[in-house]
Amino acid sequence: MRANRLREIWAKGEAALNGWASIPSAFATEVMAHQGFDSITVDMQHGIVDYQAAATMLAAISTTSVVPLSRVPWNDSAWIGKIMDAGVYGVICPMINTPEHAEQLVQYCKYPPRGIRSFGPARAVLYGGADYWQHADRELLVIPMIETAEALKNLDAILSVPGVEAVYVGPADLSLSLGCKPPRLDQTDAPVVEAQKMIVKACKNHGVAAGIHCATAAYASKMINDGYQLVTLASDSRLLAAKASDEINAVRKSGTKAGVLPAY
Amino acid sequence: MRANRLREIWAKGEAALNGWASIPSAFATEVMAHQGFDSITVDMQHGIVDYQAAATMLAAISTTSVVPLSRVPWNDSAWIGKIMDAGVYGVICPMINTPEHAEQLVQYCKYPPRGIRSFGPARAVLYGGADYWQHADRELLVIPMIETAEALKNLDAILSVPGVEAVYVGPADLSLSLGCKPPRLDQTDAPVVEAQKMIVKACKNHGVAAGIHCATAAYASKMINDGYQLVTLASDSRLLAAKASDEINAVRKSGTKAGVLPAY
Amino acid sequence: MRANRLREIWAKGEAALNGWASIPSAFATEVMAHQGFDSITVDMQHGIVDYQAAATMLAAISTTSVVPLSRVPWNDSAWIGKIMDAGVYGVICPMINTPEHAEQLVQYCKYPPRGIRSFGPARAVLYGGADYWQHADRELLVIPMIETAEALKNLDAILSVPGVEAVYVGPADLSLSLGCKPPRLDQTDAPVVEAQKMIVKACKNHGVAAGIHCATAAYASKMINDGYQLVTLASDSRLLAAKASDEINAVRKSGTKAGVLPAY
Amino acid sequence: MRANRLREIWAKGEAALNGWASIPSAFATEVMAHQGFDSITVDMQHGIVDYQAAATMLAAISTTSVVPLSRVPWNDSAWIGKIMDAGVYGVICPMINTPEHAEQLVQYCKYPPRGIRSFGPARAVLYGGADYWQHADRELLVIPMIETAEALKNLDAILSVPGVEAVYVGPADLSLSLGCKPPRLDQTDAPVVEAQKMIVKACKNHGVAAGIHCATAAYASKMINDGYQLVTLASDSRLLAAKASDEINAVRKSGTKAGVLPAY
Amino acid sequence: MRANRLREIWAKGEAALNGWASIPSAFATEVMAHQGFDSITVDMQHGIVDYQAAATMLAAISTTSVVPLSRVPWNDSAWIGKIMDAGVYGVICPMINTPEHAEQLVQYCKYPPRGIRSFGPARAVLYGGADYWQHADRELLVIPMIETAEALKNLDAILSVPGVEAVYVGPADLSLSLGCKPPRLDQTDAPVVEAQKMIVKACKNHGVAAGIHCATAAYASKMINDGYQLVTLASDSRLLAAKASDEINAVRKSGTKAGVLPAY
Amino acid sequence: MRANRLREIWAKGEAALNGWASIPSAFATEVMAHQGFDSITVDMQHGIVDYQAAATMLAAISTTSVVPLSRVPWNDSAWIGKIMDAGVYGVICPMINTPEHAEQLVQYCKYPPRGIRSFGPARAVLYGGADYWQHADRELLVIPMIETAEALKNLDAILSVPGVEAVYVGPADLSLSLGCKPPRLDQTDAPVVEAQKMIVKACKNHGVAAGIHCATAAYASKMINDGYQLVTLASDSRLLAAKASDEINAVRKSGTKAGVLPAY
Repeated sequence: MRANRLREIWAKGEAALNGWASIPSAFATEVMAHQGFDSITVDMQHGIVDYQAAATMLAAISTTSVVPLSRVPWNDSAWIGKIMDAGVYGVICPMINTPEHAEQLVQYCKYPPRGIRSFGPARAVLYGGADYWQHADRELLVIPMIETAEALKNLDAILSVPGVEAVYVGPADLSLSLGCKPPRLDQTDAPVVEAQKMIVKACKNHGVAAGIHCATAAYASKMINDGYQLVTLASDSRLLAAKASDEINAVRKSGTKAGVLPAY
Repeated sequence: MRANRLREIWAKGEAALNGWASIPSAFATEVMAHQGFDSITVDMQHGIVDYQAAATMLAAISTTSVVPLSRVPWNDSAWIGKIMDAGVYGVICPMINTPEHAEQLVQYCKYPPRGIRSFGPARAVLYGGADYWQHADRELLVIPMIETAEALKNLDAILSVPGVEAVYVGPADLSLSLGCKPPRLDQTDAPVVEAQKMIVKACKNHGVAAGIHCATAAYASKMINDGYQLVTLASDSRLLAAKASDEINAVRKSGTKAGVLPAY
Repeated sequence: MRANRLREIWAKGEAALNGWASIPSAFATEVMAHQGFDSITVDMQHGIVDYQAAATMLAAISTTSVVPLSRVPWNDSAWIGKIMDAGVYGVICPMINTPEHAEQLVQYCKYPPRGIRSFGPARAVLYGGADYWQHADRELLVIPMIETAEALKNLDAILSVPGVEAVYVGPADLSLSLGCKPPRLDQTDAPVVEAQKMIVKACKNHGVAAGIHCATAAYASKMINDGYQLVTLASDSRLLAAKASDEINAVRKSGTKAGVLPAY
Repeated sequence: MRANRLREIWAKGEAALNGWASIPSAFATEVMAHQGFDSITVDMQHGIVDYQAAATMLAAISTTSVVPLSRVPWNDSAWIGKIMDAGVYGVICPMINTPEHAEQLVQYCKYPPRGIRSFGPARAVLYGGADYWQHADRELLVIPMIETAEALKNLDAILSVPGVEAVYVGPADLSLSLGCKPPRLDQTDAPVVEAQKMIVKACKNHGVAAGIHCATAAYASKMINDGYQLVTLASDSRLLAAKASDEINAVRKSGTKAGVLPAY
Repeated sequence: MRANRLREIWAKGEAALNGWASIPSAFATEVMAHQGFDSITVDMQHGIVDYQAAATMLAAISTTSVVPLSRVPWNDSAWIGKIMDAGVYGVICPMINTPEHAEQLVQYCKYPPRGIRSFGPARAVLYGGADYWQHADRELLVIPMIETAEALKNLDAILSVPGVEAVYVGPADLSLSLGCKPPRLDQTDAPVVEAQKMIVKACKNHGVAAGIHCATAAYASKMINDGYQLVTLASDSRLLAAKASDEINAVRKSGTKAGVLPAY
Repeated sequence: MRANRLREIWAKGEAALNGWASIPSAFATEVMAHQGFDSITVDMQHGIVDYQAAATMLAAISTTSVVPLSRVPWNDSAWIGKIMDAGVYGVICPMINTPEHAEQLVQYCKYPPRGIRSFGPARAVLYGGADYWQHADRELLVIPMIETAEALKNLDAILSVPGVEAVYVGPADLSLSLGCKPPRLDQTDAPVVEAQKMIVKACKNHGVAAGIHCATAAYASKMINDGYQLVTLASDSRLLAAKASDEINAVRKSGTKAGVLPAY
């Protein structure tokens, strides 16, 4: 079975740079996959992406050596099973707030006897190889999101669930849950910053890799220095918007006679 | 009929900033349409876009006040008629090298008696209004691409074809045609630079707006200063690639322990 | 944030006319959006529509000033979160039969602290505006469906759940649940008619807007007179079928030599 | 090979009622196919439909006994060949103005020796049967559109081209070409009305079936009485718009308190 | 209402041959539907198929007399309701391990009073007929999958749930659950073989039809001899892979100079 | 630039096995790409495939080392340019009957100065590499189809056109053109067999690789022995149909009680 290269990076104590795919287009994802990310996550929760688009985006990632991940919209067996069969090498799942949630998630992601995943890796076997069934439980990553006050309270218990090998921090939801506004990435609000530190520390104790969603390279670098090992850089749609906006503003501020019509 | 706001900009002697849509996703296009462009061109030639995707991308543009344009893949009545009925306010057409090409293009784009466009503006009438049929020939723009040595030779004749109100320079093809390599935007090769200047000058003489495809804000600003009035900033996929690549490199150069696995 | 215009209509004590989109085509929805409806509901339950099509249909609605709503297939966080992030201004949810159901629905639809909606309004922020996060809980409508005998029994409790500002009656399911057959809209069966009256009366007591699905203009007008304030007129596929059938019959009955081949 | 039932209707001297599919949705087309049309034409010219959508729409028609036709966007071998291989039983082609155009069209539609159609009826053989290759040239209809002054002038010559067994009048384009405005169906402008009569008369002389696009049942009935044998009733999108608009207006005029917010 | 022909086959004590559709393409499904299967199951669990593709695949099946079934990804009302409204004549549901699961499944599939299915058979009424609502509960099949040790233990109870008229064995999952590896079809491992026999025997006792997924014709024939009455032959993607591989190997072994480049 | 591995095979005097993709599904194509073909051709002429589907199918092929080719529907710059920009490594073009046709085809496929291909390899540069523009004309293959009596007559002239490095025989069209019926692959009709031999001989003289479409492994092996070096094995849909049909018949003939309902 094709190895999960995130493990190689982590084994060296290094961090992986993760891209985030919210645009439901295999071409956009393939462009992303050529820019140097270690992994790309197809976002089926907040991205404008559902399963049928996701399956073509995973194929686009598979044209390169980038590791394919997906965030599912909920801790739900239907969505999780389908995207795993489509060939992801890790499942990021939102709103895992208790060890029971985490246990359920692991069971959805693992074959018997550890879990209850149903067998039928239609595209996964093409990507992973004929012996996929034998190694999938070992290679694929189950990645609960830690993004609420409740999850923080239960963090040790969640990290103790067998099969949880990484977690992923959603700073926007975490800030809302901790009463900090506005919800945003690259947090500076003290309660969120502290929580982020606490999470990575607990992860180290449990031998679990910590991941986090960042908006900028600067903050991502900081998070790597803090010990995070799966660090996301914004998303395709955010990168696109940022660059387009920057370029437009650069022209408009250059003193040329660029027209500015008011929007209606 | 909804007015073509590019004309308002040009009437003031100003330049329009044009976005370029190559990703076949209405969401990506809608993101683009919110960044401040005056117009967006759905690229059916080199973009990964055909008609069915283009129609949803035009709807995405129409959620804003941005002017919808399209580049067609060829001077071909089937493609041109279809995209016009889908509601574009201007057609950019590649490889118009002779006045005969230009005349044919104008005829494909105009209703009788000027042209031979067939009547049936299925989505265009939703976007443009019930009186679309009455004003379409006057509002919509026919925009030949000037991108070969042959077109340069025939430039005055092309600009003299009634109905040609703008042209669009494709610097990459133009450079290849002039024997300059590699083909690229933001040209500094003398023959191409001269041609670009000659084109805008000829356009001024004919009262025709000149457009050009640029890669960066700096060059776009320069082109506006040179008199170009429809200035494109790269494309959605180029902007996405550039920003993703920049962010990744910024992290990798920040001295953190970011892993770098070799691609295979 | 863009205001929810249904509230303006209701504030004046008037009723909104709602269109219903069952055909998975942005073009069909855009045609609907130009006919004069105040809102259009993308039906992800009984419509032939899932998320990826729905997202393009919402863009089509957003080319106009019509308010975008969606009916989700079930009281399920995955579906609800995804369609809200795609930019709907109200969620109609089937089979809300108890206050617990309603409470859960409200929680899925509201950010903390009121609910547990996860933050990531990818397209919603384009449609609603940059301050979407601040006002979404206040602008967006949570609309439980009242369509079973059990829901009638629990009506006061359901209407008392904070965040329930409107309800929607499904007369076909309601009739089945009350033992009246065949299931249909524009009810005349006494138990259903009485229930419909009871619902609107209870809604008035609670300051909640009442909505109902109708098949014809005549019945819709009657419902408005009865106090309903969100009144749906059939659906795109029903309107299409009705008109096509009427026109065909008109020709066939006109005495012309129109052929009638038996279907096989 | 499955017989072309339009021939049965015509053999009895009767007229076929044709539906028109402009919405790129197999579901919308399947709804249409159940309303009583004898044939349905997938409109690849002015409809918001290209090949990939058209192929699923043809499958939707094939769930019934309705005869599948298509209008192609242009007299172009690529488009014609592809849609024939997808299983249409007739090709309506716009802007056939000369016998040379007609001859070319026939050649694109017929296998050697009559024509140059390439062999590979991928879906057509499923729909038509294993002996498709043997009978296709005989069963399938080649239907030039007569819609310009030039075509009128060349009408006898066009009708004399072997393989032309029906023609189809596009009244909107015909009116523009004859200098009558606005372009529209259900013509009352004298030059167009005369041309329509002249066409059907010439068709009778040549043993060719005449078809025409109508907006309403009343006009369609009149056309049947005038001798037209393939009579189209508006289109799916027009029927939908008309019915939605009628229903909305009926409510708004009923004196109820329906809100009317101005569009923005 | 169109009758469910599986019942005719079973009434004669015969077995139905079932095709399995995993490729999200209406054309691939239509090809399958012409090969002689009695029914075809659109696999929304392990197939690369979600609802929007499934709906077009069901239309493709409906171009023939083959009975349309679907396997849903989970015992979930949202997925089940949607695919039933799209016109399936039977729902195969994975992981039904207890009578409570089975009861819930039946309720999702039946209208009141037996169940809680919501009324709105958008495409089902086109396929089934106008009286669909009256007969759907009687014609459509509810088919739990028996594929775990737990289900075996509860088999009698599951088969006793009113409305369960057939079951479907998933040999791969069953083998994993029984501790037999590798997971596969066409089982020879004793515990699985015994379970398969036990299931068909229990089904006979309860008057329930037994179905099973097979990989080859030989094993399928054996299963029919053992009493199974709904026998699946691999899947479209497995058949395609097998045939392509066989043909390639036949050429490579024929002694010709066919090149064999190593994959990279 | 990534090398075109077909050249490696041919340089050794060996033949490449080519798969044929007619099903518009990236998953079906990815399944094909894992079976051992050296190249796969996305068929945009007779396949149920247009550009938007083709682009995702090419990505599916690019997940492996299989060489991506496409057959375009016609010798038309719009179609050819688009599919080349999507990353094919060879263009098979139907109905090249004269050296003028061939010259035009080569010009559409090559950048200046040899041809007139427009520059913008959107996806091709991802697949081929950053130096694509420099080597594309040398690596990519231009492959005219020889499939008419006229082409046979002009064969030497066609093979002499600079840039024609391979040809492809379409035996079905060739047989129709030569007056042999029925049109089919794996020909035994003498005129076609002779023509096939003549073509491969002429190719050898000109140093051009000869390709041919076959239905079976046996005939493909024979063609390789005859000197053909690009040998296609049926198509995905034919392989699927053949295998499904074989398996069904094997069960039906096995003496089991498999039901056989007549189709209606």
